[in-house]
Amino acid sequence: MANINVGILEFEKVSQQPVEIVERKGTGHPDTICDALAEELSIALSNLYREEFGAIMHHNVDKALLIGGIADPQFKGGKIIEPIEIYLTGRAIDEKGNKKLPVKELAIETAHKWLKENIPNLDITNHVIIHPKLKPGSKDLVELFERFQLKGEIPLANDTSFGVGFAPFSDVETIVYELERALNSKEFKKEHPYVGEDIKIMGVRNHDNIRITIAMAFVDKYVNDIKDYVEKKEIVTNYAYSIAQRLTTKHVDIFINTADDIDNESVYITVTGTSAEAGDDGQVGRGNRVNGLITPYRPMSLEAAAGKNPVSHIGKIYNTAAMDMAERIVAEIEEVEEAYCYLVSQIGKPITEPQVCDVKLRVNGDLNKIKEKVMKIAQEELDKLPSTWQKFLNRHFRLY
Amino acid sequence: MANINVGILEFEKVSQQPVEIVERKGTGHPDTICDALAEELSIALSNLYREEFGAIMHHNVDKALLIGGIADPQFKGGKIIEPIEIYLTGRAIDEKGNKKLPVKELAIETAHKWLKENIPNLDITNHVIIHPKLKPGSKDLVELFERFQLKGEIPLANDTSFGVGFAPFSDVETIVYELERALNSKEFKKEHPYVGEDIKIMGVRNHDNIRITIAMAFVDKYVNDIKDYVEKKEIVTNYAYSIAQRLTTKHVDIFINTADDIDNESVYITVTGTSAEAGDDGQVGRGNRVNGLITPYRPMSLEAAAGKNPVSHIGKIYNTAAMDMAERIVAEIEEVEEAYCYLVSQIGKPITEPQVCDVKLRVNGDLNKIKEKVMKIAQEELDKLPSTWQKFLNRHFRLY
Amino acid sequence: MANINVGILEFEKVSQQPVEIVERKGTGHPDTICDALAEELSIALSNLYREEFGAIMHHNVDKALLIGGIADPQFKGGKIIEPIEIYLTGRAIDEKGNKKLPVKELAIETAHKWLKENIPNLDITNHVIIHPKLKPGSKDLVELFERFQLKGEIPLANDTSFGVGFAPFSDVETIVYELERALNSKEFKKEHPYVGEDIKIMGVRNHDNIRITIAMAFVDKYVNDIKDYVEKKEIVTNYAYSIAQRLTTKHVDIFINTADDIDNESVYITVTGTSAEAGDDGQVGRGNRVNGLITPYRPMSLEAAAGKNPVSHIGKIYNTAAMDMAERIVAEIEEVEEAYCYLVSQIGKPITEPQVCDVKLRVNGDLNKIKEKVMKIAQEELDKLPSTWQKFLNRHFRLY
Amino acid sequence: MANINVGILEFEKVSQQPVEIVERKGTGHPDTICDALAEELSIALSNLYREEFGAIMHHNVDKALLIGGIADPQFKGGKIIEPIEIYLTGRAIDEKGNKKLPVKELAIETAHKWLKENIPNLDITNHVIIHPKLKPGSKDLVELFERFQLKGEIPLANDTSFGVGFAPFSDVETIVYELERALNSKEFKKEHPYVGEDIKIMGVRNHDNIRITIAMAFVDKYVNDIKDYVEKKEIVTNYAYSIAQRLTTKHVDIFINTADDIDNESVYITVTGTSAEAGDDGQVGRGNRVNGLITPYRPMSLEAAAGKNPVSHIGKIYNTAAMDMAERIVAEIEEVEEAYCYLVSQIGKPITEPQVCDVKLRVNGDLNKIKEKVMKIAQEELDKLPSTWQKFLNRHFRLY
Repeated sequence: MANINVGILEFEKVSQQPVEIVERKGTGHPDTICDALAEELSIALSNLYREEFGAIMHHNVDKALLIGGIADPQFKGGKIIEPIEIYLTGRAIDEKGNKKLPVKELAIETAHKWLKENIPNLDITNHVIIHPKLKPGSKDLVELFERFQLKGEIPLANDTSFGVGFAPFSDVETIVYELERALNSKEFKKEHPYVGEDIKIMGVRNHDNIRITIAMAFVDKYVNDIKDYVEKKEIVTNYAYSIAQRLTTKHVDIFINTADDIDNESVYITVTGTSAEAGDDGQVGRGNRVNGLITPYRPMSLEAAAGKNPVSHIGKIYNTAAMDMAERIVAEIEEVEEAYCYLVSQIGKPITEPQVCDVKLRVNGDLNKIKEKVMKIAQEELDKLPSTWQKFLNRHFRLY
Repeated sequence: MANINVGILEFEKVSQQPVEIVERKGTGHPDTICDALAEELSIALSNLYREEFGAIMHHNVDKALLIGGIADPQFKGGKIIEPIEIYLTGRAIDEKGNKKLPVKELAIETAHKWLKENIPNLDITNHVIIHPKLKPGSKDLVELFERFQLKGEIPLANDTSFGVGFAPFSDVETIVYELERALNSKEFKKEHPYVGEDIKIMGVRNHDNIRITIAMAFVDKYVNDIKDYVEKKEIVTNYAYSIAQRLTTKHVDIFINTADDIDNESVYITVTGTSAEAGDDGQVGRGNRVNGLITPYRPMSLEAAAGKNPVSHIGKIYNTAAMDMAERIVAEIEEVEEAYCYLVSQIGKPITEPQVCDVKLRVNGDLNKIKEKVMKIAQEELDKLPSTWQKFLNRHFRLY
Repeated sequence: MANINVGILEFEKVSQQPVEIVERKGTGHPDTICDALAEELSIALSNLYREEFGAIMHHNVDKALLIGGIADPQFKGGKIIEPIEIYLTGRAIDEKGNKKLPVKELAIETAHKWLKENIPNLDITNHVIIHPKLKPGSKDLVELFERFQLKGEIPLANDTSFGVGFAPFSDVETIVYELERALNSKEFKKEHPYVGEDIKIMGVRNHDNIRITIAMAFVDKYVNDIKDYVEKKEIVTNYAYSIAQRLTTKHVDIFINTADDIDNESVYITVTGTSAEAGDDGQVGRGNRVNGLITPYRPMSLEAAAGKNPVSHIGKIYNTAAMDMAERIVAEIEEVEEAYCYLVSQIGKPITEPQVCDVKLRVNGDLNKIKEKVMKIAQEELDKLPSTWQKFLNRHFRLY
Repeated sequence: MANINVGILEFEKVSQQPVEIVERKGTGHPDTICDALAEELSIALSNLYREEFGAIMHHNVDKALLIGGIADPQFKGGKIIEPIEIYLTGRAIDEKGNKKLPVKELAIETAHKWLKENIPNLDITNHVIIHPKLKPGSKDLVELFERFQLKGEIPLANDTSFGVGFAPFSDVETIVYELERALNSKEFKKEHPYVGEDIKIMGVRNHDNIRITIAMAFVDKYVNDIKDYVEKKEIVTNYAYSIAQRLTTKHVDIFINTADDIDNESVYITVTGTSAEAGDDGQVGRGNRVNGLITPYRPMSLEAAAGKNPVSHIGKIYNTAAMDMAERIVAEIEEVEEAYCYLVSQIGKPITEPQVCDVKLRVNGDLNKIKEKVMKIAQEELDKLPSTWQKFLNRHFRLY
């Protein structure tokens, strides 16, 4: 039985405190691109290893660096001057017996595939250079992973680390998350191809006023001139407002590209739909947490989940587990209004046995009456950890 | 007058909650190395620009990637097989008129200098490759920075972003921070040269028990054999215990390198004192926050302060400002036991005028009686922001 | 009037000496790929500069490095494990006023375009990484080039260097050259898609026996098994024999892939048609001379013509000029059986005024009677040098 | 018995022909630096393999690329703006059983060591980046090399390739070679530290006039101003003249840095003593042949000897063997005035059995009388080939 604490959240709900800050970096943000490529590579490696070894072998590809290019965007279409460069880094077993496994090729192909699907205005052949800088890592770990995966032993924590999660989202959190999802949806893009994928949303609630600031890259070839830009920005502003206002009863204001200087025609247009084309660099783990948001008024882990191996890497699986745990507790126990979960591992111990599992709840009624239910859910979620890797391979979590 | 909220911290003190988690990545951790090199480069660039232009020009070097090497550590001294590689990335103006400024050379020299001083067992010529991947960035920003620095105008926020800070430290926070500082102090190293700089400390308090888990790289040439290793680990454990226990009345346990397998002589030794030599990669902004700690039970910003320009980069100056503000409020107003500060900017507005300045306090007595004092301090700290860059150049803050 | 010497070739014709050695590296050889990409880049830059400035500006991109990949070729189709990497290096002006010119993008796009057309089984997106490592070079040279190109002044030699040429080809030279051209022709490939582009031919004549050794990469997906390989090799051997024998009355033997070990099925198959996929590296200037051959029994320059600027770069324009001069003298003066030309520049002097122009002839009759004609042709070729750049832009020369 | 032809050199001696061209790129020339680093790496690898395996294992590191930096040289001392970058490329076995061999570290350390000794004004830590881009190459070759080295079998030719050599040097050849050696000698540098290592000498003889054009990088910190520069250039010119005139009875003129523009103080000064600091790129095999010279009036191989493995790599060992053979024939057979040797291999055959060994001689008297002696020497030199690797390890040859 794990060391599970269940306690009370004593402070006022974040949504009732005077101020609240929430941020989300959308699909085309340089940090999000790094997260996505790291995680896609982990999935591709996991699949390769399952084919070759019948099990997921050791890998950890949770570091990447995107070096922005140089671009010359123009209304009706500009051009790229220097390409974006992306370094994909980490450890991955690259041999099976004497057979060399194509892990570097996999990194390149996986990155190109994701970019092609998700940043369609980026020419993956000519405008981005993928540098696969993977190293083999220790061969000793092969055996360890075989034990986990082939013989069914419970994986051991790779590190002393922790994960955190909470549920449910406040209004501002919901707005920020849903708004980016809407603006980056295939349906919206079909009608509004001028909206690039690099959309960063900051939501600040000051008492009952929610101020949504959106930095959104326009795609230059779909914008004719400054007049057209202003009109299109207006269209998106109205659309965003309609979505946001549907999600809250509070007052909402929407601001898009507030740094634009319309008179000098200095506005946020790009060739590719991402600021990565011109100077904005990115890294893994510098953007959204596993729930898709950055929330300074909530507990956060600094661990980058993306790219870590899904079998035993605490920084990945404890964050999603804590999120799942919080969501289940809120969903399944009527009296619970809000849940925060914290999990801390001890290196070398089974992942199902954290040092601490700390659950804090906002309860309508008596905590003691539901404590057992909470502990049961928590324990169940811990017990499920050895098979969590399947969820990562199925892209079950938001993760970034 | 800025938009300053002053409110109450309603929840139980973190130090009185049942569980608390605190982490610090020491000097030689790959993430800390990245932070340090990014920040040192920002300082060096700032100094260069002041010499050349009389003012700090635009730069942002807050991304870096360390790709671990391959090493063969051995008792009495092993060797490096493949070097560490460090990519230093970002934007920095590299021309003055037709004169080319040595920003890439500066990146290399600054990195070598810091590494030589701080990771003394690393051969900076042969065991590490510095890749300066800086790009010039927009020339338009030159004029903007001249206005800030030469004409005394208040810098405008570069982004919609936020910073957070709190004070004071709990016992666990103090122990984790001070312990790393002690183990990495020049005095300690003089007597104990076998202790490498890569020291990661995780403190977990479960009610009245504080468990300190230390991952500490030994320097192989100063360790004769497995017996010697065990003895030296014992010495450090005792020393760490003596320091930690001095800082708290709670029960402390110290665990060093718990993954060691003494029987198989598989222990944590390194050639250079950092795990970067063999597979551990690093990035800027993935480690300690500006107060030197990672604290999931406290509000945290995900912004990497290191490497950002010290004049107008919100992700840097609002985090240190929030920390300073919290510390001053606690220090100067007797009734305040604890302070949390949140600052949110609006892109394009003067840095002295945040969207929101949210101050939450734990007060002995009536909040209303001290509200004015709090607001005065907050306003003073905001007013000082235009000269904060001097503190960064003087390395006044911990920062990582 | 240039300093022109006209003399006699006193030694026996190479084709009548007992031994003769001739080599050609075909289209897909790593060195030839480097030559081609360097030259294509020079042409692309020249065109860009003509558009932007109305004149070819300074550039020199005559260095490149191809780092071979890792591949796993298999009958019926194997796969690439690690990509080929190609570094394109040199100097190229990259600004016009404050406008940044896309020279790095041009390098990438030009390289991809050539590779796609010439190595069709290479996946240019995933199997090769182009690293454009161009630097701006001196701005002073802008003015110099404007004088040459816009004001019609005669370009000044960029260096003290030389070029050599000879005519006509011997039988062995003709065979080696034509054989590669035939095996790499579109017509032949259409019928024989299993023949890759990496074809290296060594011709050795020992008295009246010509031994042609061909190293030829097969494309694995078009070869079913070892039996099929042997049959296809036989087909190509017969075809090569038919071509070679048509070009000489001497005895010819053809040997293809003599290092094959048929019993162990260790034969020369590739995924992409080039050995660059698996370990063979390449550089500019290490392969064919400007006439398409490597001929140790003939005078050769070590200068790499490919990639040098076509306006004033002696290592390029003196080699083609010497070749043209030799060919014209042989073609236009009946008495001349063979011509060797040597041109030496003096740095800073007009390119039309070499230090020395040394012409050596094998003449049927009296040299003195034709000397004037020879000198006239030589002088005409020198006078034409200021417009030679047009021929390079039109891909008039073999060059590699 | 090898297939040895002995014939007559029928043409006039090069030294008696009207024109002669000879070039040498000195120690600090970018191409020479590449040659030197490639060869030093081959030696270091050979030594490592001998220690680890008791034999030289397969390697081929005959490709390198030097990308020039950016510098701001100034009288009394300027500075480096961007470092030189050097890519060292090729194949080298990097494992012994499960033990990883430090081949990349070796590449870095060897390069730094050579640069420190030979380009003393270059700061090896900060002004140059070494990129070791070695790949393991085929494991099958391990066994092959073991057979050669451990069991004493005769190595088999790695390729169908050739080597050429001649003896003796003409006056111009001697002058060009010796002059560079003198200007780059430790004794001369001691008195004249302002003379950098990048010295390129072009000798052109036009009948009885020898024109020596020297491009020589001055070291800026040892030159006070333009007047000092002019005086020092005068000193070196006189010294060079005294050396050159000692070596010939013909008329000699010396020209140093003819592109200097004294009035505008635009002269050839450098921070480091090599033009590599500012824009001149380099490659292996683009400079001097194995005898130290570039001689278009002599037979030349295009093979880069530097960096190739010394056991079985024809492009290396046949060039030095042909040179040795020519030198011995001239030295030991009184009647021989001049010798040219050509060697062609057949891939997969013992290196002692070339396809052709073609020896051409200028003889005082009857060729037939000495033919047997010549063939004996040639055969002896071929027989010695299996132990030639020792000479490379002892740096017995000039090689570049």
